Amino acid sequence: MAATAGRVIPCKAAVAWEAGKPLVIERVEVAPPQAMEVRVKIKYTSLCHTDLYFWEAKGQNPLFPRIFGHEAAGIVESVGEGVTDLKKGDHVLPVFTGECKECAHCKSEESNMCDLLRINTDRGVMLSDGNARFFKNGSPIYHFLGTSTFSEYTVIHSGCLAKIDPSAPLDKVCVLSCGISTGLGATLNVAKPKKGSTVAVFGLGAVGLAAAEGARIAGASRIIGVDLNPNRFSEAKKFGVTDFVNPKDHGKPVQEVIAEMTNGGVDRSIECTGNINAMISAFECVHDGWGVAVLVGVPSKDDSFKTKPINFLNERTLKGTFFGNYKPRTDLPKVVDMYMKKQLEVEKFITHRLPFSDINKAFDYMINGEGLRCIISLDE
Amino acid sequence: MAATAGRVIPCKAAVAWEAGKPLVIERVEVAPPQAMEVRVKIKYTSLCHTDLYFWEAKGQNPLFPRIFGHEAAGIVESVGEGVTDLKKGDHVLPVFTGECKECAHCKSEESNMCDLLRINTDRGVMLSDGNARFFKNGSPIYHFLGTSTFSEYTVIHSGCLAKIDPSAPLDKVCVLSCGISTGLGATLNVAKPKKGSTVAVFGLGAVGLAAAEGARIAGASRIIGVDLNPNRFSEAKKFGVTDFVNPKDHGKPVQEVIAEMTNGGVDRSIECTGNINAMISAFECVHDGWGVAVLVGVPSKDDSFKTKPINFLNERTLKGTFFGNYKPRTDLPKVVDMYMKKQLEVEKFITHRLPFSDINKAFDYMINGEGLRCIISLDE
Repeated sequence: MAATAGRVIPCKAAVAWEAGKPLVIERVEVAPPQAMEVRVKIKYTSLCHTDLYFWEAKGQNPLFPRIFGHEAAGIVESVGEGVTDLKKGDHVLPVFTGECKECAHCKSEESNMCDLLRINTDRGVMLSDGNARFFKNGSPIYHFLGTSTFSEYTVIHSGCLAKIDPSAPLDKVCVLSCGISTGLGATLNVAKPKKGSTVAVFGLGAVGLAAAEGARIAGASRIIGVDLNPNRFSEAKKFGVTDFVNPKDHGKPVQEVIAEMTNGGVDRSIECTGNINAMISAFECVHDGWGVAVLVGVPSKDDSFKTKPINFLNERTLKGTFFGNYKPRTDLPKVVDMYMKKQLEVEKFITHRLPFSDINKAFDYMINGEGLRCIISLDE
Repeated sequence: MAATAGRVIPCKAAVAWEAGKPLVIERVEVAPPQAMEVRVKIKYTSLCHTDLYFWEAKGQNPLFPRIFGHEAAGIVESVGEGVTDLKKGDHVLPVFTGECKECAHCKSEESNMCDLLRINTDRGVMLSDGNARFFKNGSPIYHFLGTSTFSEYTVIHSGCLAKIDPSAPLDKVCVLSCGISTGLGATLNVAKPKKGSTVAVFGLGAVGLAAAEGARIAGASRIIGVDLNPNRFSEAKKFGVTDFVNPKDHGKPVQEVIAEMTNGGVDRSIECTGNINAMISAFECVHDGWGVAVLVGVPSKDDSFKTKPINFLNERTLKGTFFGNYKPRTDLPKVVDMYMKKQLEVEKFITHRLPFSDINKAFDYMINGEGLRCIISLDE
C-alpha cells in the first residue's frame, strides 16, 4: 500500500475556471478512490481537440470549474474496494470511455460502446456516488470524461484504465489513449484494407494521419490524403500518404476526382473531419462492388447524411466507428505492444513537449494548428 | 453434337409485341449460338417482378417486340466457339447477370458485379455482335436481360449460365436463378446474422421471404416481418417469421417500434421493398454497436437516402447488395446443393403452376399479388 492510500492527496492541477480562459495551476485535493475506482499518478498527458472543444464550451452547457484532459499515461497510486485487476505501481492509460466486461456491448465481439462506461461529456462527477473527487478550499471541481488528466493525481473508474506493458515509455504511449488509436483502429479494425489496396483519408490532423498510419501498416499501395490545407501534405508523407487532393483545387466534387485517379474509386476511405460534405464524399469515392467507407469525425447535431440509395445497392458499405472499435481494457495493451514491436510509429505524432506549468501553450499550438500532439510532463 | 447444332431452331416463344399487352405464343426462329454463347432448351421458367416492370414499360424506353423471362432452368442444346466449360446436356440456370471470371469484379472476393456481363436492362441484343438471335418472319425480336427464357430455346452468353447438379429437379430449382437467391444471399452472404440473433425483414414478397429463409437457416432466434399487407403474415410464418409489424398500425416510425420490441434494435435488417422510407427505417432499426442493415430493393432514381450521421458513428453498418452477392457461375451451383441437402426449402415459394400456353395468367397472379412464384412449364 502506498503511504498516501486512503488519504486525501494535495497536488497540482490545471483548473479551467471559465470557458475559454487560460487554465490556472492550482493546489487541489484529490479524495481517495471509492469502490471500483483507482487513483492514478499522471506522468504525461497530451491535448486533444475534445478538450479544446469543451473548454471553449461554445456548443454545450458549460460546466466549470473543471479539470480537463483525457489523453494520458500514469501509474496506479491506490485502488478502491473491489478492484482486483489493478494494483499500486501498474502502468495505465486512462480512457475517456470504458469497458465493464458485463454489458451486451462488452460481450459483443463487434462493439466497444459499453453501456455502463460509454463516453459521457455532460457528467462532471464520479458515476458511483455523483460526487467529485477534486476539491479546492472544500469546494468540488468537476471531472471531464471520467479522466481529468490535467492533474498530478486523478481518480478514474477501474473500467476506464488499460493496464499496459510497464516497459513502454509513458511519454510516448500516452498519445495512444485517444486520438491516435481512434484513427488507427478505424483503418485496422473497421475499414480493414487488404495489402496492396487504395485508401483515401479525409482530414490530415492527428486522427487522419493515424488512419493513414493504419493503412501503411496494412500494406496499402496508395494512400490519398484529402485536406483543405495544402501545408499538411509534407507532414502527411511521413505517414505513408502518397497522393494529396485539395478539394479547393478542383471544379468538381472530390469523389469524382478520386474516382478518376483510381479507375473507379478507392477500396477504402476513412473520414476524419466530421464535415458532412466530406462524409458524403468519403462514401461516394469508394469503388462499387467492394468499397468500404468508415466515418470517424463527429458531425454537428443538425447534419443530415444524404446520398442516392443506388450507391449502396452497387455494393458499397458505410460504417461508423467510435474509438476505432477498440475495447479499452482488452485492446489498448495490444496497441502499446504494436508500438513496442516497432510496427506502429508513435514518435512522428509527437511534435511538441512542454512542462506542466506551460500547459496553456499546448492550447495555443492546437488553436493555431501547429503540429500534431504536444506532450505535457506533469513532473516538470 | 445435337442434330440441331449449328442450325436455326424453329420453336414456340411468348412474344411481347407491345407494352402491357398480353404475350402471344408465336413460332419463332432461334439462330445458333455464336462465340462464347450457348443455346439452351428452357424447361421451366417463372415470372419475376423485373419481367413485369419492363413489360409494363412505364419507367424506361420501351423495347418491343421482346421476349421476356430470366428466372428459369434448362438444358444445353449446343455451344458456340470457345465455350469449354459447358456441353450439350448440361443442366443450367440462366442468370440475368454474369461472371466473366476475368475482370476486377470477378477477381474480387467481395463483388459479383462483373464488368463485362453485369445486368443491362436496355440491351436487347447479344453482346458479341449487337444482333438478336430471335427472328419472326425474318425480323429480329429483342432479348431481355441476356436470358429471354419465355422461349423453348434461347441463346445466352456462357458467362450467364450456372452449371448445376443434373439430379436437381428443374421445376423447383428454376426459382433459384433470380429472386430467391437474391433474398437468401442478402442474409447469408451480406447481413450474416449469427445463431440466436434478431433479424428484421422489410417486405414479405418472394425476395423478403427468401431473406427470412436465410435468417431461419442461419439460426436467428427472432425474425420480424414488416409489411403494409397484413394478409402476408400467415404465409410468412412458414418462412420462420416470428413477429409481424404493420407500419400502419403504429403512430410512430416503425424503427422505434422495432427498437422497443428488441431492447434497442435488431442485430440485422434486410430491406426488400425498394421504398426509400423503408430503407431509412431498415437502417435506423438496427442496434447500435453491431447492427448491420442490408439494402436489396431497387429504389426510384430520384430517391435520396437521408439519416443523421450519428446513426453511423454509433457503430451501425449499411450495405447494399446485388443478387445477394452470389457470383452466378461460382456460387449458384452451391445454392442448388443447399436445396438438395434439404437445408433450403424451395417448395414453399412455389404457389402456382401453369402450362406455357397460359403464361399470361402468371402475369395476372403477380399483378393481383396472388402467391409467390408461378412455375411455367415450357413442355406443356
